[in-house]
Amino acid sequence: MAEAEGTRFPAGTIEAQISAILAAWGMAEEHVAITTRIMLAADLRGIDSHGLAMLPLYEEHLRNGKITMRPQIRVVRESPVTALIDGGGGLGHVPSDLAMRTAIDKAKRAGLAAVGVRNSAHYGAAGIYALMAAQEGLIGLSTTAVWKPSVVPTFAAEPMFGTNPIAFAAPAGRYPPFVLDMATSTVAIGKLKIATFAGKPLPLGWVVDAEGKPVTDPHEALRIRSMTPLGGTPEMSSHKGYGLGAMVEILSTTLTGAAFAPLRQARDPDAARHDVGQFFMAIDPKAFRDEGEFEADLDEMIDALHAARRADPYQPVLVAGEPEERAVAERAAVGIPVPDTLRAIVAGIARRAGAAMLL
Amino acid sequence: MAEAEGTRFPAGTIEAQISAILAAWGMAEEHVAITTRIMLAADLRGIDSHGLAMLPLYEEHLRNGKITMRPQIRVVRESPVTALIDGGGGLGHVPSDLAMRTAIDKAKRAGLAAVGVRNSAHYGAAGIYALMAAQEGLIGLSTTAVWKPSVVPTFAAEPMFGTNPIAFAAPAGRYPPFVLDMATSTVAIGKLKIATFAGKPLPLGWVVDAEGKPVTDPHEALRIRSMTPLGGTPEMSSHKGYGLGAMVEILSTTLTGAAFAPLRQARDPDAARHDVGQFFMAIDPKAFRDEGEFEADLDEMIDALHAARRADPYQPVLVAGEPEERAVAERAAVGIPVPDTLRAIVAGIARRAGAAMLL
Repeated sequence: MAEAEGTRFPAGTIEAQISAILAAWGMAEEHVAITTRIMLAADLRGIDSHGLAMLPLYEEHLRNGKITMRPQIRVVRESPVTALIDGGGGLGHVPSDLAMRTAIDKAKRAGLAAVGVRNSAHYGAAGIYALMAAQEGLIGLSTTAVWKPSVVPTFAAEPMFGTNPIAFAAPAGRYPPFVLDMATSTVAIGKLKIATFAGKPLPLGWVVDAEGKPVTDPHEALRIRSMTPLGGTPEMSSHKGYGLGAMVEILSTTLTGAAFAPLRQARDPDAARHDVGQFFMAIDPKAFRDEGEFEADLDEMIDALHAARRADPYQPVLVAGEPEERAVAERAAVGIPVPDTLRAIVAGIARRAGAAMLL
Repeated sequence: MAEAEGTRFPAGTIEAQISAILAAWGMAEEHVAITTRIMLAADLRGIDSHGLAMLPLYEEHLRNGKITMRPQIRVVRESPVTALIDGGGGLGHVPSDLAMRTAIDKAKRAGLAAVGVRNSAHYGAAGIYALMAAQEGLIGLSTTAVWKPSVVPTFAAEPMFGTNPIAFAAPAGRYPPFVLDMATSTVAIGKLKIATFAGKPLPLGWVVDAEGKPVTDPHEALRIRSMTPLGGTPEMSSHKGYGLGAMVEILSTTLTGAAFAPLRQARDPDAARHDVGQFFMAIDPKAFRDEGEFEADLDEMIDALHAARRADPYQPVLVAGEPEERAVAERAAVGIPVPDTLRAIVAGIARRAGAAMLL
């Protein structure tokens, strides 16, 4: 946390700042509302890399003409349990929100549904979409490919996949939903940035160089951005993280007809759009269990995990989604921390966009 | 490979040996055929731990009365895109084969289907089921919980999940299917056995003791069987492997109404059955893409992965499923290696069952 060097702002202020910039970029009002809600949810959940901090990348994409702010979003295929949405070359949040809502509606009727998105771009934090399903009493799954490869397959020496996250959420009864939201790389790029602040060498196995050798200097690592798949090294089963990254790519890209980034870069480096793909699924537990049974059993599993013997008596055993729930409670009460460096960057973006600076 | 100390047998001989023992145990003829096919497929694919080598565990379960050889397998819930199957307390292969075939049939009609199994037991190698879907032109997913916890959550000091595998398969065009089949632990138990043969210390992060400390003696590790989740250590993101294990448990156990092993052990240690759960899903790419597009794009992705720059010029970049495809080709030609130790164990099982010893 760079909180000591930053300032906390109420969620409403962050929301207004994001909205002001998106609107100044020419995004339609209803798209601004959806995109802002999803970006703010990341900031509230403590996923600092995927809210306000995404604006610099979005500005870069906009300046390079890689995204439009006025996409035509269309459902191009549909069945009672599937749909394919064309994102129209805009940011990913709006078509992804439509995709997850479509999957939820269909799953409530049929028990199960899957929706793909193509011709999209960065969609924010994967967990937000999976959580949408859990908040409606369904199991939710969301995956996304990315515009630029950063993860090096086992035995390779160049990146072929993105951090290709998997998000999976499930509704509990007494507890908030289970929400797993994980990059299939060992660590996310945000952790490299934090390591540069700390000035300490990286653990072996986070980042590799062009020969596939470990990189431990955090500044060098952040420049190279060649991450390892989850597992880190072949000895620690990095082929599993690589396999999971490939699974995400197949669901997000191959199934939707979006672009596989290394091939797009090689064949059409000046392509008008990045054509990123996403995948969403919803499953209704009531297709398998009587009403309430699933949620009660998940509560009992969470109880058992909390009660598991601890390796360190002062470190509780956590369940996926709990750190984010705590962040929401804390940040809704005392505000969202914005490091000074990010605040200065946002000021520049607001100025260039002709938007008010509210932070 | 303990091949130097073993003998190769033709697949037909292994098949006959497995069948003879299952039949001698009293399994119905049609169940013997299905179970043997799935166990043999593991041996052919080089997944040595999940074929013939499973017989000792199955014998133990049978002797302890934890499985029946004459299960009543029933579809207890069904919709056009979902089903729930009760395995009747027998081995998992037969209800799981029915579940995956049901998912495939429904997905061919509707585009997508999910089927759960409860009141089941060990089902062999997860990848065999996912591959069934890919061989029918569909994306396949399979997960299973287990009868006995062996994987310790991040920050815990006792096992709460099994090795809870995820298998995911997808059909290619020129290539054999992509088949990811991975335990969500750092390594499978089979790797510990191999390490005891080699007599070398284990890498830090494969196994932990009752205080959550790393265990490097392979014999001690095999006795304890407290594995780490994929990632291995908190620093290397073991919370992701833990989260994936929980996801598998939610799909396999919570969704199907099967037993969560730590709670079953605590509440009903003498339960008649282990009540293991499994989950299967199939997705038809033709619900999203035109005929052949998915397979052609997956071929191109595999081409690109093969062509990726190598860390070691003599170590090709592999794609999930390729080592298993090579094993099938080799073992179909020259036979399946059976270590002498396993052969002696199988001889004892055959003798006790009153089955012929064919190896």
